[in-house]
This record gives sequence, C-alpha cells and structure tokens, in this order.
Amino acid sequence: MKLASLNQGRDGQLIVVSRDLTRAVRVPQIAATLQQAIENWDTLAPRLETIYADLNDGQATDAFDLDTTALHSPLPRTYHWADGSAYLNHVQLVRQARGAEMPETFWTDPLMYQGGGDSFLAPTEDIEAVSEEHGIDLEGELAVIVDDVPMAVSPERAADHIKLVMLVNDVSLRGLIPGELAKGFGFFQSKPASSFSPIAVTPDELGDAWRDGRVHLPLTVHLNGEKFGEPEAGPDMIFSFPQLVAHAARTRHLGAGAIIGSGTVSNPGIDGGPGKPVADGGVGYSCLAEVRMVEKILHGEMKTPFLRFGDRVRIEMYDRWGNSIFGAIDQQVVRYQPT
Amino acid sequence: MKLASLNQGRDGQLIVVSRDLTRAVRVPQIAATLQQAIENWDTLAPRLETIYADLNDGQATDAFDLDTTALHSPLPRTYHWADGSAYLNHVQLVRQARGAEMPETFWTDPLMYQGGGDSFLAPTEDIEAVSEEHGIDLEGELAVIVDDVPMAVSPERAADHIKLVMLVNDVSLRGLIPGELAKGFGFFQSKPASSFSPIAVTPDELGDAWRDGRVHLPLTVHLNGEKFGEPEAGPDMIFSFPQLVAHAARTRHLGAGAIIGSGTVSNPGIDGGPGKPVADGGVGYSCLAEVRMVEKILHGEMKTPFLRFGDRVRIEMYDRWGNSIFGAIDQQVVRYQPT
Repeated sequence: MKLASLNQGRDGQLIVVSRDLTRAVRVPQIAATLQQAIENWDTLAPRLETIYADLNDGQATDAFDLDTTALHSPLPRTYHWADGSAYLNHVQLVRQARGAEMPETFWTDPLMYQGGGDSFLAPTEDIEAVSEEHGIDLEGELAVIVDDVPMAVSPERAADHIKLVMLVNDVSLRGLIPGELAKGFGFFQSKPASSFSPIAVTPDELGDAWRDGRVHLPLTVHLNGEKFGEPEAGPDMIFSFPQLVAHAARTRHLGAGAIIGSGTVSNPGIDGGPGKPVADGGVGYSCLAEVRMVEKILHGEMKTPFLRFGDRVRIEMYDRWGNSIFGAIDQQVVRYQPT
Repeated sequence: MKLASLNQGRDGQLIVVSRDLTRAVRVPQIAATLQQAIENWDTLAPRLETIYADLNDGQATDAFDLDTTALHSPLPRTYHWADGSAYLNHVQLVRQARGAEMPETFWTDPLMYQGGGDSFLAPTEDIEAVSEEHGIDLEGELAVIVDDVPMAVSPERAADHIKLVMLVNDVSLRGLIPGELAKGFGFFQSKPASSFSPIAVTPDELGDAWRDGRVHLPLTVHLNGEKFGEPEAGPDMIFSFPQLVAHAARTRHLGAGAIIGSGTVSNPGIDGGPGKPVADGGVGYSCLAEVRMVEKILHGEMKTPFLRFGDRVRIEMYDRWGNSIFGAIDQQVVRYQPT
C-alpha cells in the first residue's frame, strides 16, 4: 500500500496513492491524517488496503490524478524523529574528515540522534538556509514509521511495529557540526528541518527487496541534474531497521508515528576503500561530506563545495523495473528571507 | 491564566484551572486540547482568559473540583522538546564528576539537547526504569511553551512567543550518559520520558517574579518526603528563556507547542563554591548528580545513591505567599515490567 499527505493544514490530508503514483483517493471516512491512521493502524490499515486494491484496479470511486508537488512529507510533523547512522562507511569518512578515529564499539552499538519533528519540509519545498557558510549538505537516507512500540522491545518484536518506509533528506549544516559536537550535547542547530519522499509505502510493497529489515535497492541522488550517487541501501547497513527501532526504545516507549532513520546511505569501494565518484565508475555518494573526504584522501584537498543557493537536490529510489517507488525529494537551496 | 490537560486520549482534554488550583472548567467549545489552543493562541487565549476570570470570581458555569492526579502533563506529547542547560553551576558540577573541564564558550553559547516528545509521563505517573544500574536521577527544571517561532528570531522577538511556563522533571539515566556522550551524538537512551507540572501558567500569572525572561522564585524538591533542595531559579540562569528559544530557532522554524527547558536549576554556594546540602544550611539541589559531586569534593567519595525502585520525587514551586503555582510533580520510581 502507498500513502501520502496532501499539503493542507499542519498534519496534511491522508490519501491513498496508486502503485504507479499516478492516481489517488481521499479517505476522510477512514482517517483525516496519516498520524490518525498510524495511531489506529491495526483497525484502519485493512480498510485502506481495500481502497488501494480498488485504486490499482481502476475501480476506486472519486480517484483523481496525483500531482506529487501538492504533497507534504507523509508525516508533515511527528512527535519523535530519531536518525541512526547505520552505514558505518559514512561514519568512518566524516570522522576521518574531522581527524577522529572510529571506535570499535560503533560496530555493535548504533549511533542515533534525536531530531526536531515539528516542522518538516515538503518533498519539493525549498531548503531555506541563513548562510552558505554553514556548509549546507544533503543526506540521502531511508526511514521507517512505527506504531506504538513498548519500552525495551527486542529487535525481533520491533520488526512487527514497522508499518511504513520512505526516503529522507536529512539536511545538515556541516559548518556547525564540529562546534556542536565539541560541546558534547550532539547535533542541534546543525540539523535543521528534514524532508521526506512524497510517498510512504508498506514494507510488502518492496517485495523481496525488503529483507533482513533493510531495503535492498540503490538510492539515486542527483545534484543539479547530474547523477551524484546510486549507493546500494541494503548490504552496508550495519544495523537493520528493527535493531534501530529497538535501540530507540531501550529506555522509553515510542509513540505511534515515530520516525526512525537509517543514516546516510553509503557503500565502501570494491577494494574496501572509501568508494569512487560516479564519474570514475563508482556508485558515488548521497552526501557531499563524503565526496569531499574522498577528494582529500585521493588529491590532498577538498574540491567539491557544499550546497550553494540555487543548487538543486533530487533523491529517489527505483524498483528493478525502473519505477519510482516513493516519488522524488526534489528541492532547491535558497537564502532564508526573514519576514 | 492557568491551563491543564485531563488525562484522556493521547493529547489530553484542555481545561482552565482556577488560580488556587481547586476548580476547573472544560472548554471544548474553544479548544479540545492545549495543542489546538497553542496553534491558535492569539485568537483563543482571550476567550480562555474570560473563562479564567469567571472561574476565579466563582461565576463560571459547569466548574468542577479539580483532582490534580487526574491530569496529564499540560502537553502529553509535543513535536519539539528541547532542553537547555542554562544553570552553568550544574554543568560545572556534572562535568567535574566526569573529570571534564568546562570550556569558556559555555558562558556565551547555550547548551541544548533535543529530547523525545512522543510519550511524556503524567505528573504523578510512575517513572518506569529497566534497571537501577542505569543511575536514575531527577532533574528539576522550568520550561516554556511557545507558539510558532520563525527561523533566526532575535531573543527580543522570541520573548513574545513564550505563552506558558511550567515545571519539568527531566529524568536522566546517569549510568548511560558517559557512553552516549563519548559516541558524540549526544543524549538519547540516557534521557527517557520527562514529566511536567500538572498546570501551565501564562507568564503574567507569575507577576514580578517573571522578569528578564526568567522565573525568580525557588524550586522546591523533596526526595522521599524530605526537602532536598530549594534553589533560586532566577539569578543563576545564565541564558534567559528568550535566549534559549532564539538558540533553538537559529536554523529552523519552531512549530507551535514546542517546549524549551531551562536545564537543572542550580545555585553555587555563597562562597562561589558548589553549594551545600539543605541539612548543612545550603539551598540543596534539584538533581542527585550534584550532591554526589559535592560529596566527592568535600569527603572524597559519593555517598548518596541514585534513585532506587520505590523512591519518590516531588517538584513544586510556591509564590511568595506559599501558594503552589503549578501543582506538584510527584512520582515514584518503579521497575519496568514488560507486558
């Protein structure tokens, strides 16, 4: 099943979207918002699935042509947004860029930070930033939405609470990160509002690409119309989504609608090294920090700048037949103009 | 004006509470929840104020006797919960306990971490913990609720967005903090669900105790019925609430209902030292980590244990005439029993 939220009101308006992303149906008789649906998932999901089947069969009444630019992120806001960093190749590279070693425990104990869930960007909304000097970067990721998860859940049981999957652009301000991490309290100003793919899908929608709690497909990232990366999201995700959900719930209950992210998708190179740019035959990257570190390793200096005002970022994922699964995150970076 | 939420449904049911906390009125015709009220504050607050005036005058229809144990936290969940650490005496002490120096920049750049807002505890709800080995601690604090705050707001303008004030118990798991901070991503599992005072009040309700964006009154903390602290919340708060709100909004808009905390209220001693326990004539503490550090400084070892199952914590604030302003956070620590 594929779900989305029309960009209306603070929580959007829930719609069911056809598998090919061309048609949709409003479902106010079932749930006004995705938040309402996830809070009552066991009861409401079967009713939404019925409409989804009708929609794909061309039998749904009141279906309309979908304009994905009219969509907000599936959850325009949420009470809990926690982002892991499960691709340790990314962690190794960004730490190398800061001159920091990666502790051995990182292979067994997930990294995760708490983000602000109050004001997500729509998938095609401008990324407003105060200054290019903040080192504006994208981070292409996957994320899951869970229903109510009890404290101290096991990874095995956590898997049952994963109801939806989507893509994320976890916008990061690299210039602010070293100072914030030095203070010891983790990211805060360096992680402004994130955006999500227009469509969220149930795991079954991914077929056998959803296995071991991971999405085994490449994530495609374009910068200003040129392919920047298509790293595989499956094999190098050291911690699965169920493991990340269990980590988040170790000392607290998670409320329905909590979003848990994977961290930046990143593959090491075939030689075990940091991986090559697309232009050099590699799979590329899903954030600029990595290519900059690779440039430093290979050529002695970082050449690629961070994002500048006017730059455009596109993040998408295709199934094996070339169909977009989640629709595209497609955003331009602009200077913030205070009102 | 004083507002609260009956513990019904995920977001509670908004009520207006009399100044003396004895009577209340349901207000579904104005707003079902406090979240709804804060999202439409400029329109709805005057209507709520009218009912508040009637209630205090004994003129409100449908008023009922208030049982504060029937209340949830004013916002049972929120989209943004960020906690500063504005009492640097606390920061110095807990860092000293870890053997870490406090950088000079801490006097000019606020510390703040992002917490999970999805599952707050009610003010009299048990604090469930998996293990006493986690080093369960209270942190008595103040917090404010804001309406929509634009990105990059100045502290001067941020002040206008502060709509409500309340108390917090920012439960902390001290045993998990060093490991988490060493990973560099800040607090996560070490900051389980917080609880808030049953009543939230508009700043004008504090009279001249609300000035310079701070609450100039002592915070009273009891442990198992004995007074543990009554530190002054005003003078040693290095950053005001407007400064903390502006810090939180530097790179993102804050959505209505965002909660910004002060950090653990803490006073240095008259001699500039770490401050004495109540039993020794000092103002005491609002967390156990501080008394433990003081014991280590004065006697060479920490004697006071962290909270144990069965321990009870009470946090309250009184006006100059001895009236409870916010009602009490009054919680027992219990072992978590997975269902």
